[in-house]
Formats: sequence, structure tokens, C-alpha cells
Amino acid sequence: MHSGRKQPFTGNRGERALGELAVLKKIRARAAHAPRGGLRLGIGDDCALLRIGAGEELAVTTDLSIAGQHFRLQWQTPESIGHRTLARGLSDLAAMGARPVAAFLSLGLPRELVQNQNWLEKFLDGFFALADAFQTPLAGGDLAESPVAVADIVLAGAVRRGQALLRSGARPGDLLYVTGTLGGAAAGLARLRELARNGRSMRAGQRDPARPDSLGIAPPRIPGPLQSLLAPHLYPQPRIAQGQWLARRGMATAAIDLSDGLSTDLAHLCEESHVAAEVDAAALLVHSGATLEQALHGGEDYELLFTAPPAARVPRRIVGVPVACIGRILRPRKGRPRVALITEQGRQPLAPQGWEHFS
Amino acid sequence: MHSGRKQPFTGNRGERALGELAVLKKIRARAAHAPRGGLRLGIGDDCALLRIGAGEELAVTTDLSIAGQHFRLQWQTPESIGHRTLARGLSDLAAMGARPVAAFLSLGLPRELVQNQNWLEKFLDGFFALADAFQTPLAGGDLAESPVAVADIVLAGAVRRGQALLRSGARPGDLLYVTGTLGGAAAGLARLRELARNGRSMRAGQRDPARPDSLGIAPPRIPGPLQSLLAPHLYPQPRIAQGQWLARRGMATAAIDLSDGLSTDLAHLCEESHVAAEVDAAALLVHSGATLEQALHGGEDYELLFTAPPAARVPRRIVGVPVACIGRILRPRKGRPRVALITEQGRQPLAPQGWEHFS
Repeated sequence: MHSGRKQPFTGNRGERALGELAVLKKIRARAAHAPRGGLRLGIGDDCALLRIGAGEELAVTTDLSIAGQHFRLQWQTPESIGHRTLARGLSDLAAMGARPVAAFLSLGLPRELVQNQNWLEKFLDGFFALADAFQTPLAGGDLAESPVAVADIVLAGAVRRGQALLRSGARPGDLLYVTGTLGGAAAGLARLRELARNGRSMRAGQRDPARPDSLGIAPPRIPGPLQSLLAPHLYPQPRIAQGQWLARRGMATAAIDLSDGLSTDLAHLCEESHVAAEVDAAALLVHSGATLEQALHGGEDYELLFTAPPAARVPRRIVGVPVACIGRILRPRKGRPRVALITEQGRQPLAPQGWEHFS
Repeated sequence: MHSGRKQPFTGNRGERALGELAVLKKIRARAAHAPRGGLRLGIGDDCALLRIGAGEELAVTTDLSIAGQHFRLQWQTPESIGHRTLARGLSDLAAMGARPVAAFLSLGLPRELVQNQNWLEKFLDGFFALADAFQTPLAGGDLAESPVAVADIVLAGAVRRGQALLRSGARPGDLLYVTGTLGGAAAGLARLRELARNGRSMRAGQRDPARPDSLGIAPPRIPGPLQSLLAPHLYPQPRIAQGQWLARRGMATAAIDLSDGLSTDLAHLCEESHVAAEVDAAALLVHSGATLEQALHGGEDYELLFTAPPAARVPRRIVGVPVACIGRILRPRKGRPRVALITEQGRQPLAPQGWEHFS
């Protein structure tokens, strides 16, 4: 055994052409078709080389996804897992107002998932469909065998110096905005778990021999009409265009993407800006089929939460997506909750209810 | 359960301050001390922001390390695992001739490793000691619970446009050079495995209650005199200064770092350059205590392998590290092995013998 060997996406390794090498060749071939933009050198060397404009700086983010924690082989199709892996990273770029330059994907996979051609192919289908839609070339990554499926996504983007949307710029008096509708991903996840629980009966007589039961990778068949209900969970759309729009106009004082849920991400923004905030429950655009609870605390909507001064002319839609004014930024005060929710019943603290690892 | 929540290194999440948050705070605090250089915005936002010079481009690399594949909790101290995680990434920058700008670390850890304060502290000790030595600020990353320990390291570096050392530039007639000595890491690993096998008797009477046996994370105590023998394996030194020296002088036509072993990495370089090569066994600087086999095929020496035209004045040492001319680049010919080894017994094919996942 050679402990510690690395294998970046380098395509070929001499005479042998099995397993890992075949997978790497496949990934490299698919990556080669993408538009390259600022990517000067992609898969095949020790590093990728990226170029950005003279007046730009580079935004970089990493997001680690682990089977059982961030995705479920039993619930989600491989296309959705591929899509969501990339969407997490793109959404972070969106929150900075950056345009994507390159993605890097580190995959640790159980042997069975790689040798099950279907699974990896479909994972890559989902990944590259989103990458193509956002003109994001895959510039590198790593591949290794792992007892549990893990995917670490790195996104590099470019943004004009001084224009990046930060979490730390919100000021008392600013208004609070959110793009799109909230709670759709959480409602979709709840529906999908329900489907998975009833999976056995749904799938009676249609077992797929290409999906080894040992790994439990047999996501439930989803009836057509349900697919649009599940879309916010399975195929979230990063708000890249909306983030760039805000950054170019210098309209937002702060921004964050809603990955952990409104209550948690708003607390992050307030923390970094040293401010407090209040949210009007009635102003939230709750996704059709979702509850207020899901809109407030459900994660993975990947909408943008941003602040702007009252004088800013924030439009009702940005690049086709509705924008709602949902509250305001306040001066922090002793005894005042960091974030409050205003409902018909009055004012109450809105505690972050996001997921915490190791707790 | 909130499937899919992400938690970048954002420090704090509202009122709660346990588990993950405590770890993130600790990492953020340690990262804050580092020199920042091109890092304009570090841990705490959706992305980090990096600045490079107007005439520079960005080199980016990712390396995934998985317990049981790339490192062994039973054999290696946490300090060494932290050091090696970062060294893998820095070595890729070295191979491009880039100067480090920022590192990103995604950690997936079993609950026991995080709650065992000792382990994570020492992992970070090893990581930050190397980061400080190479003025590489930790700019971000991700943290999640995982049934198996995984660490994905991302390095971003800067290199003058057109000066990056590529794998693809070797030409027939070029000479082949390597920095430092070879086989030391493989010899150290072999010695360490031996020690681990005899670990029980060595550790009699000195069990550490802070190291849960359930995970088997009790690396053997290493007697003082052995430590220098094991150093090439436990604490490999990335050749950042040597790579930058070569890039600045435009002296090398191609370069790669020796992570998978000379036989494998030379095959990569030949593949990308569309050339063949031959190595003189007698010219190799074999590490004291290592065998020729270990020098040829042992991975993780993290020395630089590079090519230069015969007219180039390659010195005997570069920034303090010896450089040996070990062979030459040839035109590829049908029936000729991609890489050949010349010994007293004559000429023989040198097949890559690196590790391949999924095979």
C-alpha cells in the first residue's frame, strides 16, 4: 500500500487505464468542452491557472458535502446530488456578487459508486448541466476511494475591487431584502423524506439492478406532478445574476446567501455587521406548499438576503427574480434580541435554528 | 435533521457556542494571527477575497486526504497529519513556481476526534506551523461531521503571467533534474509501519487516556534518534523557494512535484509533454537509509522534478537544496518505453508504480 498518494485530475498514468484513470479521463474529457473564460490552464497539471481583470479580485469559497450529513444516496438522485454540490459553491459566489471563473471538485467515493457507471455518470450530468448554465469550467480537483461519499467543491470567481458584497456592511436604518421565495427547499425535503419512507411500495416491481442495494442508493421514483414541488430542494438555483447586478450598482450594503436558513443566516449577517434586525412575518414570500416555519428556518433555499439604505431604489424584480423587503436593520441594544420577528401576535426573538455539527 | 446545511468557517452562529462553533472560533482565532499578504478578506464571509499583482495569474490546486487511504490515525501523530495535509497543497504550488497566497481547509471529522481536544489542537499545531513557515494565511474552509476523517486542502498562489512551470514543456534533448534526495518518505513510512506493528509493547505502561482506543488514534511513541529518520515521511518540506527560483529565471522547461513517486510522476510529465525519458540509476541521490526501489517508486518525497535545456546553467544547489541531473528527455518512439532506467545491467523500462484508487 502506498499511504498518502495523491491523484489530482491528471488524466493518465502511464500504461494502466482502469478504475481511477478511466474516471479521471472521463471527467477531463467532459470538462474540456466548457467555455474557458478566465481559465488559462485546466485539468492536467499540478495547479490550474486563472486570470482575472486588472481591476478585479478573486473570491474563493469551499463547501464540503458528506453522505448522510449533506445529502442522502437513498433520497436524492445522483443528478440532484451533482447539481446541489455545485450550487452550494455558486451560491457563495452569488452572495459576494462575483462572476464564476472556475470550479474544483474533490470526490471521495466508495468503490461501488464508481464501479456503478450509472451513478457517477448521472452525478456528472447534474454537475455539468449546472456548470454549463453558469459558464463555470471545471478546472481541477481530486479523486480518491473513501468508505463514505464526500464531495468538496471549490469555486473561484472574479469581482471588481471594492465591489464585493460583504456580510459586514449592514448599518442601522438599512432595509432588509430577500430574493425569490422561502421554504421551498425545506418543504421539498420533507416531501422527499415522506416519499422515501413509502419507497418500498412505490418501487414494487421496478427495482433497478444497476443500483446496488448494499449502498441503499435507490432514490424513489418521483411522479411527474411532484417534480416541480421538489425542484427547490433537488435543483436550487444560485442567484449569480442577481448578486452581480447588486454588486455592479453598489446598491447593497451587505449580503449573504440563505444556505442555513433565514434565522441562522440573518444572525450571521448581524454578527459580522455588529447590528440587530427585525423581520416582518407578513412580508415574507413563502414558497407555495411551504410553512412559515420552513420559510424562517429551512435551509438550502440559496436565495440572497441583502441590505440597502432606505434611499436605495431596490426594484421589485432583479434579473427576473422577485425581491421582497422583509424587515430592517437596528442598532444592537442590551436586552434586545439580535434578530426579532414581528407577527400579528407582536414582537418575539427569532433564534437561529440551523444545523450545527458535533452538537 | 437539516440535511445539506453548510457551515463555512464563519465563527459564530447566534446564541449557541458548542461543538462546531467552538471549533470554528478556535480556527478563526488562530488564522487571524497570520500575515495576510494578498489576502484581503479571510474567514467570516461567504468567500475569501484574494488580490494578486497586475502582471500575475492565480495557481489553484486541491488535494483530498482520507483516513486509511492517505493518512493513518494509528501511525501518524496529529501534528504530522496537519503538516502533511498542507504540504501536499504547497508542493503543487512549488511545482508551478507560485508563491502561496492563501489556503482553504475543508475538514470532515468523526465526533470523537473533535471532542478529543488534544487531537484537533495538535492537528492545527502541525498545520499552522507549516503555514506560518511559508507565510500562507488560512483564508477559509468548511467543517462537518463525518464517519471517516477527511481533509481537503486548497492552495491559491500567484505567479507572473507566462512564468508558471508546466508539466507540458519538456522537449527532446532537455536534461532531467531533481531537487533533494529520494526515497526518504517511503523508507520512513516503512519504518513507521514496523513501529506501529510493535506499538503495543512499546507503549506498555504509558497509555494516554485522552486518546480513545475506539478510533485507534494512538500513534506510537517515537524514540528521539528515530525522529530524523522518519522526518521525510512525517514532515516533508515543500520546495516553494526552489520552484519560485526556477520560475523567475525561466530556466526550467517543465516541472512536477514528486508526490506519487519518480516513476509515476515522470510518466505524467512525459505524457503531458508528449516525450519519452531515461533515468540514470547511478545519478539518483538516494536518501540515507532508503533503497533504490524506494527512490524510484516511493511517493511523497515532495521534491521537484524538472527539465531544462542542456545549455541552461542549473546550479548544484538551489536555495540550499542539492540538485542532481538524473537523466534526459527523448523523442517518443514506437516500441520504446515511455520511461527507461539505465543501470549497470543495461536499459530497462521503468513502469509507473504509483497508487491507483478503485483498481
